[in-house]
Amino acid sequence: MKLNRKDILGLKDLSVEEINLILDTADSFRDIATRKRKKVPTLQGNTVVNLFYEKSTRTRTSFEIAAKRLSADTVNFVAAESSVGKGETFIDTVKNIEAMHPDVIVVRHSSAGAPHMLAKMIKPGVINAGDGAHEHPSQALLDMSMIRDEKGGFAGLEVAIIGDIAHSRVARSNIYGLTRMGAKVRVSGPATMIPPGIERLGVTVAPTIEEALRGVDVIMMLRIQLERQARPLFSSTREYSRFFGLNEQRVRLARPDAFIMHPGPINRGVEIDSAVADSERSRILNQVTNGVAVRMALLYLVTGGGN
Amino acid sequence: MKLNRKDILGLKDLSVEEINLILDTADSFRDIATRKRKKVPTLQGNTVVNLFYEKSTRTRTSFEIAAKRLSADTVNFVAAESSVGKGETFIDTVKNIEAMHPDVIVVRHSSAGAPHMLAKMIKPGVINAGDGAHEHPSQALLDMSMIRDEKGGFAGLEVAIIGDIAHSRVARSNIYGLTRMGAKVRVSGPATMIPPGIERLGVTVAPTIEEALRGVDVIMMLRIQLERQARPLFSSTREYSRFFGLNEQRVRLARPDAFIMHPGPINRGVEIDSAVADSERSRILNQVTNGVAVRMALLYLVTGGGN
Amino acid sequence: MKLNRKDILGLKDLSVEEINLILDTADSFRDIATRKRKKVPTLQGNTVVNLFYEKSTRTRTSFEIAAKRLSADTVNFVAAESSVGKGETFIDTVKNIEAMHPDVIVVRHSSAGAPHMLAKMIKPGVINAGDGAHEHPSQALLDMSMIRDEKGGFAGLEVAIIGDIAHSRVARSNIYGLTRMGAKVRVSGPATMIPPGIERLGVTVAPTIEEALRGVDVIMMLRIQLERQARPLFSSTREYSRFFGLNEQRVRLARPDAFIMHPGPINRGVEIDSAVADSERSRILNQVTNGVAVRMALLYLVTGGGN
Repeated sequence: MKLNRKDILGLKDLSVEEINLILDTADSFRDIATRKRKKVPTLQGNTVVNLFYEKSTRTRTSFEIAAKRLSADTVNFVAAESSVGKGETFIDTVKNIEAMHPDVIVVRHSSAGAPHMLAKMIKPGVINAGDGAHEHPSQALLDMSMIRDEKGGFAGLEVAIIGDIAHSRVARSNIYGLTRMGAKVRVSGPATMIPPGIERLGVTVAPTIEEALRGVDVIMMLRIQLERQARPLFSSTREYSRFFGLNEQRVRLARPDAFIMHPGPINRGVEIDSAVADSERSRILNQVTNGVAVRMALLYLVTGGGN
Repeated sequence: MKLNRKDILGLKDLSVEEINLILDTADSFRDIATRKRKKVPTLQGNTVVNLFYEKSTRTRTSFEIAAKRLSADTVNFVAAESSVGKGETFIDTVKNIEAMHPDVIVVRHSSAGAPHMLAKMIKPGVINAGDGAHEHPSQALLDMSMIRDEKGGFAGLEVAIIGDIAHSRVARSNIYGLTRMGAKVRVSGPATMIPPGIERLGVTVAPTIEEALRGVDVIMMLRIQLERQARPLFSSTREYSRFFGLNEQRVRLARPDAFIMHPGPINRGVEIDSAVADSERSRILNQVTNGVAVRMALLYLVTGGGN
Repeated sequence: MKLNRKDILGLKDLSVEEINLILDTADSFRDIATRKRKKVPTLQGNTVVNLFYEKSTRTRTSFEIAAKRLSADTVNFVAAESSVGKGETFIDTVKNIEAMHPDVIVVRHSSAGAPHMLAKMIKPGVINAGDGAHEHPSQALLDMSMIRDEKGGFAGLEVAIIGDIAHSRVARSNIYGLTRMGAKVRVSGPATMIPPGIERLGVTVAPTIEEALRGVDVIMMLRIQLERQARPLFSSTREYSRFFGLNEQRVRLARPDAFIMHPGPINRGVEIDSAVADSERSRILNQVTNGVAVRMALLYLVTGGGN
């Protein structure tokens, strides 16, 4: 089976079959990372351009390592040093990159929808590495890969997503993906961080973190993005922690076999206590490992690979 | 035939035979970019250092992709983060890089002549990726590759170059190259942007853009480099556009089969109207595609390759 | 013989046998740099991450070229653009990188001991590329490689190290390594730059540069790191040069076959005169060449290679 699309823009568009194909492909790539020779010739002679309009090392490095393990050539195009400063439009920059015949452009942009617009205008595959507060599909897919690993599937699973739901592209992509696959999603956070009408996406809103956690199979904590808030959405990080931080006591409200995820980087003592982040239930670092495999799968599938 | 030099510093020095060799070699590399596997082993085990003392993504990316498609290893050495900030001289920095045995150093520097000085002092091949307002040979060669593609040759062609002739290394390199190959070059721009005595390079100066465009085969627009002007050379971009911007009406002054080039990044609505930049006559993105092939040719030839 | 450790943290810990193994391995890699095809498949499929919390181009480039000539994949992780700015701890950043299964992490950090802490917490090999004013083992090993090349060994050699001994990780690593191998080390510099009790490391302190240089086999000048001094440690660079700069007259105090080293980048006219830096006795650029070979050896040995 092959992916019938050249772009990965968001979870909103992906079907159950497509999500399963991506997760299965990621599984098949996973063991490459633990070999002595962590490299397969699959994408030799392919060019992957990382086009990042927002600072990122974690996601870019994950894509770069994924591409190199598939033997693709990678070029990093950081917008800060680019012609952006010379007044060139986004589309012109991208059209110029396209003219150098890359196979895939991995793009992160502060504007929601930028990768979607781009994907329509160019021939190479486009992978959205985060667009504004909209979607971050490779993150959601690695989260889902992690959940499927642990739980064997999604049907009937109860997942709590806690934090700034309104501004989180990670939350949005996970909500689309998890509900599509049959999981039940509850969200919780300060009132200023819960977008009105979020229930229409098929989730329930819990008024307190305690209610959100009760009996869940999976706890997904979101990063408090202090650096993104123009105006503060809560009075202090201490207060945030008191009402919505994950501590050991709260973890006990979940099912005994529940595990904890976080897209990173974590703010220790704010949205998650150190004891919890470093506990046996934490899968935060396993998520990162799965991230490389999922991104290998995405690069492979958008360039026409199949299983 | 091989190139009898280890450096590409400018078009001023290149003979007709050398230019033809470079363009022919570029042609032979061009189809690599459209293959599924865009890579040949030609420069395997070679090290190409991109040494950029001015910000650039476009040109650096083009050289980086060119090097990788030839299987060379590439290292980016951006001056802003380097020992430059620690007071090291340019020559000492370069001597240090040379001591690591690279095969080619691609250098961009704000001082005219910096690559030439460098080339004399070190053994690896040097490719000038732009030195001050002096030369930008890889750009001119890709422009010439574009023109030869379209017109089959240069003899008797009429080429108009419009804009800031005085401060443009692109204009200077093209003037040397095009006149050497037998084309006739006219330049035009605001009086402050036409260097006195430019006629000595074998070009004619047209007082208006209309006169420059009348009956030409090729229109080459230059970028207005707003970011480089210490003092403004014209009163407003609107005024510039009115007197020297390329619009559809002005395009009609050229020959019916004339086409339009621009080294990018373009300022839409300043030196070129969007309708013209995106028209069928525009070759702006084809230039970028040719750029990779021309840079592959340069890397190949300065490391001793031949046809 | 193989290295019985996964990390290279400093010269303090390395035995005579280990130092010899590293220098011998470097010798065996040295000729690769002068071949037409400067590449061996030794580390194919290995991932080397350069994690730099201090700006550096020279050392990072040397490691990057070393890794690529061994066919490893390299990823540059510059802390300035990373999650550091998002409040993530050093250990969390590194644990995240570890989760992507690199084989070696080359780390530079402004805090003494950071690489040592890191090495204990993660499975991949760690190479210290400079930690605060503590150690810079790859630099000292390349200096020692240079000395062994010239002199055949270390026993009984007299080495003068001149400059800011107190703040130099290069000095510290060389003192550990050279004394371990049987060389006699003298240090000299302004009183504010000689740490009290330095004699306990087995060196002698010379009150003047003249006494330090008299009869030595090797002169190692240190860089005056003007950019690191919070408060000036001497009244002017002219004064520094007058009392502790190396000029031709002072070189004559050393043995006739003595040679001159400097870790670079050099401050011409401050700690070293141009005539001396460029003289036949200078090995400053040879050090850089040896640097690539020594770093190839370190990458090879920490990933389990042996001779």
